[in-house]
Amino acid sequence: MSMVGLRRVVEPVGVLPQAAWRLDASPEIGPDETRIRVQRLNLDAASYRQLAEKHAHNGDAIRAEVLDIVETRGKMHNPVTGSGGMLIGVVEEVGPESPLPVKPGDRVATLVSLTLTPLRITDGLAGWDGLSEQVPAEGTAILFGRSIVGVLPDDLPPELALAVYDVCGAPALTDRVVRGYPGEPTVAVLGGAGKSGSLTLAAARRAGARTIAVVVNERERDTLLAAGLADRVAIADARDPVAVAEAVGEPADVTVVCVDVPGCEHGAILATANGGTVIFFSMATSFPAAALGAEGLAADVTMLIGNGYVPGHAEFAVDLLRQVPAVRALFEARIAAD
Amino acid sequence: MSMVGLRRVVEPVGVLPQAAWRLDASPEIGPDETRIRVQRLNLDAASYRQLAEKHAHNGDAIRAEVLDIVETRGKMHNPVTGSGGMLIGVVEEVGPESPLPVKPGDRVATLVSLTLTPLRITDGLAGWDGLSEQVPAEGTAILFGRSIVGVLPDDLPPELALAVYDVCGAPALTDRVVRGYPGEPTVAVLGGAGKSGSLTLAAARRAGARTIAVVVNERERDTLLAAGLADRVAIADARDPVAVAEAVGEPADVTVVCVDVPGCEHGAILATANGGTVIFFSMATSFPAAALGAEGLAADVTMLIGNGYVPGHAEFAVDLLRQVPAVRALFEARIAAD
Repeated sequence: MSMVGLRRVVEPVGVLPQAAWRLDASPEIGPDETRIRVQRLNLDAASYRQLAEKHAHNGDAIRAEVLDIVETRGKMHNPVTGSGGMLIGVVEEVGPESPLPVKPGDRVATLVSLTLTPLRITDGLAGWDGLSEQVPAEGTAILFGRSIVGVLPDDLPPELALAVYDVCGAPALTDRVVRGYPGEPTVAVLGGAGKSGSLTLAAARRAGARTIAVVVNERERDTLLAAGLADRVAIADARDPVAVAEAVGEPADVTVVCVDVPGCEHGAILATANGGTVIFFSMATSFPAAALGAEGLAADVTMLIGNGYVPGHAEFAVDLLRQVPAVRALFEARIAAD
Repeated sequence: MSMVGLRRVVEPVGVLPQAAWRLDASPEIGPDETRIRVQRLNLDAASYRQLAEKHAHNGDAIRAEVLDIVETRGKMHNPVTGSGGMLIGVVEEVGPESPLPVKPGDRVATLVSLTLTPLRITDGLAGWDGLSEQVPAEGTAILFGRSIVGVLPDDLPPELALAVYDVCGAPALTDRVVRGYPGEPTVAVLGGAGKSGSLTLAAARRAGARTIAVVVNERERDTLLAAGLADRVAIADARDPVAVAEAVGEPADVTVVCVDVPGCEHGAILATANGGTVIFFSMATSFPAAALGAEGLAADVTMLIGNGYVPGHAEFAVDLLRQVPAVRALFEARIAAD
């Protein structure tokens, strides 16, 4: 139990770090802990979108609020969206009882959410203009004994590895779910042109599925068609349930929601066949909307909360990126545009 | 598509009735619709708890807010909890294109949530003191073509049938999940002494599981022990993850959350074995807390959003109640105490 970070919880006492309002982010480590010298944060897409919209894309205001959140909570845990992101850095010190497979000097990405990672920022985020999810930063972060960390691969730029790690739960869980269906199941991916969406499409196809991507506009459709990542690409607003169902056509065996906006639950349910599965990977998912929506539609679908952890998920996603050049190209284009 | 009630959505246009802010609850029916003369509402436990706490258990204030919600939204959809409840009544008129298996005069319970059911109240809830989830009411409700409705069984009092129907998704889904595990899996039920909890315990045992109930105090423990519904009963605050994990002991194969308070996600995850399943039936479940909590704990668990619909769920739950006298006794005691 000590390995889950309880000693870092300041308030309320007794909850786990993710549920805590405030963590102790001091840099001195306990025997099971690891300290990381932070180099870059990668804010969760839903979190960054909320901040950017709140502050009308004013970079200074966005930066000030991120600093304020980290100062107040001891972690980058957006109180509105409930989401965080990840970071990369260099291992500085490893406690004698830590089971994590890292040593000082390793360049790593933390694969647990920033919402539970004690974080201290020491440079005022001076190197960040506030206008991108990728945040150059100096400071320290703490990992507990029970955690997940990935050493950055030598053959990929760190921004690319971080972007892949950020969404690596989605392709691994999709692979597992798709392989549970016989024959050639149909997989619909809402938000197929995004990071988690494109990896999910590639994973579904490799697992033997026929794939349909639902995207928001012609630009994304053309990008995906050129990349050849989906067997079919349709345009629909993921928040419009009737439009989503019509875009997917014959209901899918598996529908994966990779759109980081609220209100996509009902379209995903309507687009899924009886006996099918909906995997929700968006942090903007509403639990009651999903539960009551399925009931209201008399939809016999299995609805999964997208768990960001599947054993081997980071290697799985990096491997997909290496093997599917179109996915890598999409990621590189997104990073370049950031 | 017309069967899902789109014509009843007033705002915002284009969403399904469950997601709508306001529905048109007028009593004239469309060709696929059915009108029910309402006799009684059964408010969702999380919703009633929120209203009761907000108004310090002042019945008049609670009644006034329920009336205001129904008047404003055209449905009993608690804007804070996002949950609703169910109702019973008598079928008044069935549209010529309705596929529902009912006829005028049938006494029925609606098995879809009140959050998507157009509802008009005509008696000001004069027969309700505001102090119970069970609300005598006069008015009309509308069912769409794609809906779920249960004719009330002749051998059970209607309050009893309604109370069972209200939670009938939980035992049916638990049965399905437990039967997916080989041997004699262990099932932990958080909130085992409640309505959905006791039915879930009975369903898990009938499906071949060894059962552990986690309850909040000695009174509930003694009740459950006397009822013999669980192989073991432990006391813990479901919001305290470490206490829950210690109460369950050896991690469970399946953990079912039937506690209608926020903050139970992490205890459920910690109490579940790798490869296990957590089924969230509480409307107070936070999607990000579950998703990020499992990731933060490196927990390889399948997390299900408790779908209130499984084919045959109502008959399944009523059958359990008939066959397990201890479950029936618990339900009757709760209704009598209400």
